[in-house]
Amino acid sequence: MPADSRRRPVRVGICGLGTVGSGTVNVMARNGEGIAARCGRPVEIVQIGARRDNPDCDTSALNVTREIFDVASNPEVDVLVELIGGTTVARELVLAAIANGKHVVTANKALIAEFGNELFAAAAERGVSIAYEASVAGGIPIIKSLREGLVSNRIQWLAGIINGTGNYILTEMRDQGRSFNEALAQAQALGYAEADPTFDVEGVDAAHKLVIMASLAFAMPLQFDKVYTEGISGIAIEDIRYADELGYRIKHLGIARATEHGIELRVHPTLIPRRRLIANVDGVMNAVLVQGDAVGPTMYYGPGAGAEATASAVIADIVDLARTLEAAPHQRVPSAGVAQGGCRTEARVPPMEEVVTSYYVRISAQDKPGVMSQVAQICSDQGISIEALIQHEPQPGETLVPVVILTSRAREVRLNQAVAKIQALDSVQGEVVRIRVETLG
Amino acid sequence: MPADSRRRPVRVGICGLGTVGSGTVNVMARNGEGIAARCGRPVEIVQIGARRDNPDCDTSALNVTREIFDVASNPEVDVLVELIGGTTVARELVLAAIANGKHVVTANKALIAEFGNELFAAAAERGVSIAYEASVAGGIPIIKSLREGLVSNRIQWLAGIINGTGNYILTEMRDQGRSFNEALAQAQALGYAEADPTFDVEGVDAAHKLVIMASLAFAMPLQFDKVYTEGISGIAIEDIRYADELGYRIKHLGIARATEHGIELRVHPTLIPRRRLIANVDGVMNAVLVQGDAVGPTMYYGPGAGAEATASAVIADIVDLARTLEAAPHQRVPSAGVAQGGCRTEARVPPMEEVVTSYYVRISAQDKPGVMSQVAQICSDQGISIEALIQHEPQPGETLVPVVILTSRAREVRLNQAVAKIQALDSVQGEVVRIRVETLG
Repeated sequence: MPADSRRRPVRVGICGLGTVGSGTVNVMARNGEGIAARCGRPVEIVQIGARRDNPDCDTSALNVTREIFDVASNPEVDVLVELIGGTTVARELVLAAIANGKHVVTANKALIAEFGNELFAAAAERGVSIAYEASVAGGIPIIKSLREGLVSNRIQWLAGIINGTGNYILTEMRDQGRSFNEALAQAQALGYAEADPTFDVEGVDAAHKLVIMASLAFAMPLQFDKVYTEGISGIAIEDIRYADELGYRIKHLGIARATEHGIELRVHPTLIPRRRLIANVDGVMNAVLVQGDAVGPTMYYGPGAGAEATASAVIADIVDLARTLEAAPHQRVPSAGVAQGGCRTEARVPPMEEVVTSYYVRISAQDKPGVMSQVAQICSDQGISIEALIQHEPQPGETLVPVVILTSRAREVRLNQAVAKIQALDSVQGEVVRIRVETLG
Repeated sequence: MPADSRRRPVRVGICGLGTVGSGTVNVMARNGEGIAARCGRPVEIVQIGARRDNPDCDTSALNVTREIFDVASNPEVDVLVELIGGTTVARELVLAAIANGKHVVTANKALIAEFGNELFAAAAERGVSIAYEASVAGGIPIIKSLREGLVSNRIQWLAGIINGTGNYILTEMRDQGRSFNEALAQAQALGYAEADPTFDVEGVDAAHKLVIMASLAFAMPLQFDKVYTEGISGIAIEDIRYADELGYRIKHLGIARATEHGIELRVHPTLIPRRRLIANVDGVMNAVLVQGDAVGPTMYYGPGAGAEATASAVIADIVDLARTLEAAPHQRVPSAGVAQGGCRTEARVPPMEEVVTSYYVRISAQDKPGVMSQVAQICSDQGISIEALIQHEPQPGETLVPVVILTSRAREVRLNQAVAKIQALDSVQGEVVRIRVETLG
């Protein structure tokens, strides 16, 4: 399958030779012929900038420099691929590449989520593009789907399982009956979780990805500091069991939703009905469910990480840029989904207290009459109905009874007030647990 | 969100004002501002060609002609949207539009599956594009994902639930215990199935969609006449029950698989493990699971039909073309995924007898000793192992015992020989039922 011989290769410089960098080099080497046939021109790696070699890929025939900024100033490079991670050097590197008129491909979610507005403006000014398919959900083409495939839709909401580590832990807790700490240790032993797992289990990673998807779905600027973020380290095994009894699974979701008060951006553990397809996305897999006004619900599923899965997205971006390398800037898909100036300059992100949803509430109460009527009265006073309730016998040797309720939809501020009052009851001991519920229907 | 005022609108002519045509007009009217902001230019409907009006959409302010070929010759039209269906007039219309230098967007799977090779060549010759996202799986951006998102992968196989009518019928049979005929009548009553359901339930519709996806996944010409097609009208309720006992669901799948002997193209009922996500895609929903060598498994899910779901895909194609309207042809994504000449000129599609897979076999046998050993011997003689077996007591008043076996992987020609010999046993009565099994792992 010969590429059009009239067209010169697109010349790529790769910065960073870690997991994704080596995956990218390997996939390009293995599938180069097919990629060239589809791209219409060969894709050539003209330089690699990396502090050290990576035994997972053979760069002996490639031009490798230890000075990554050399790649940004190399006049032979058309597209700089930023795979070094972090937001300090990476930001400088990307700005340098843009200043030198190079397109940029990056897998760096923190960089886009935190500095994307600045970088997109710089790129638009210089007439180049920044592509970042690999920054969200690995090789799943979710960025392309939001930016191009669903372009005619008014997106109503999206909800994603976008952190494989967290999903693995929750799956292990449910399937194997492990505690959070046991499941985390298991994830660490298998290399799915870092030694310091904070970024994954406390939701920062998911918040980065959510804000990127939301910016495309709602044509709004990236507002990472506005994302409400709650992790899964507080999820107890009994909550997973009670949720199951009620017909729900607990998943760590990133949710963006358009309301009349703005665009909600929130990452938190969530009960979702077991019958929903996304409730059955298990292990390290990712999935994003998107509700558009024209198309209805669509879902995108696949591995959210991994060397070659992420490389798949990196190379797809390179091919897109290669096709339109000689085209006018406005003939390319804009980095932010809409042209600079076409984007809303701001979008209100309502605080969590304004969010309306249903709740799972677990109370540990003394096993004596009257507690339930007190709880029901407190909820009723806040305009909250109890939709379902389960009460179990005390565990052997325990005097406390677990009471689990599912509430009607309520503003979070109301629920918070109810929880505070329940917590203050004499017969209630331990912390009242509260997990949000979304039907995603 | 003003579109770039320096750029004139892209001018669209729509031919056909049925379900998808009216959905397209309605979505463009409702979301026109957002579409223009994302597209970088307004999208304007300059003419509609339709034999009759459609009460579902208001065309009073639009230029409507009863002569659809007027749209193909209208010099004001940049993009002709073919939504009339069929393959005779539609083919002439598309060829006329191409001859007049217009891009074409179509939702017509039969047209692309049966005449795509000719149409793509004509379009390439004239320097225009044919876009057909809406032809497969409604609003799910599966064409874009295969053609662009997964561009760096060597696709190993894909398997899709790509006919909503058939999936609805199988879901009703399982969930409600209805027979095929009862479920079909229900689908017809709800408007999910046509009065003549042959196209949907016998797999022709799925075969059209499969061959289109396979052409992109494997960079091969469209070979509709090579698709093996088997429908679901022979599926009995007891097969769904026995499959469930064995941990499987029966789905009507379109499967394309690369083997060393060519690209298998087949549509047939298939047992898939219940734990697979795609086994849980129910009702009228569609899903396509794609296995790439770099990315691994990814899946795309959503409504496979409907006015606005399909319109979502039609408009996405229009926006893609609008962006690159003034670009050189090679700067657009090629219609066939690879440039003309970059595509394989042929790809062998092995006959079904060469396919290797596992099988579910149901036998109705007299309840007497020796039958099972005869069946086992016949399988063994063909090199086929029995992996699982269930045998139930005869139904009250029946003397025949249902025996269900799951086989090891075997070439279909071997299985056919075994089935013929089992069928010929004196103790076996009624037809031996054979359904293919895929693990999709």
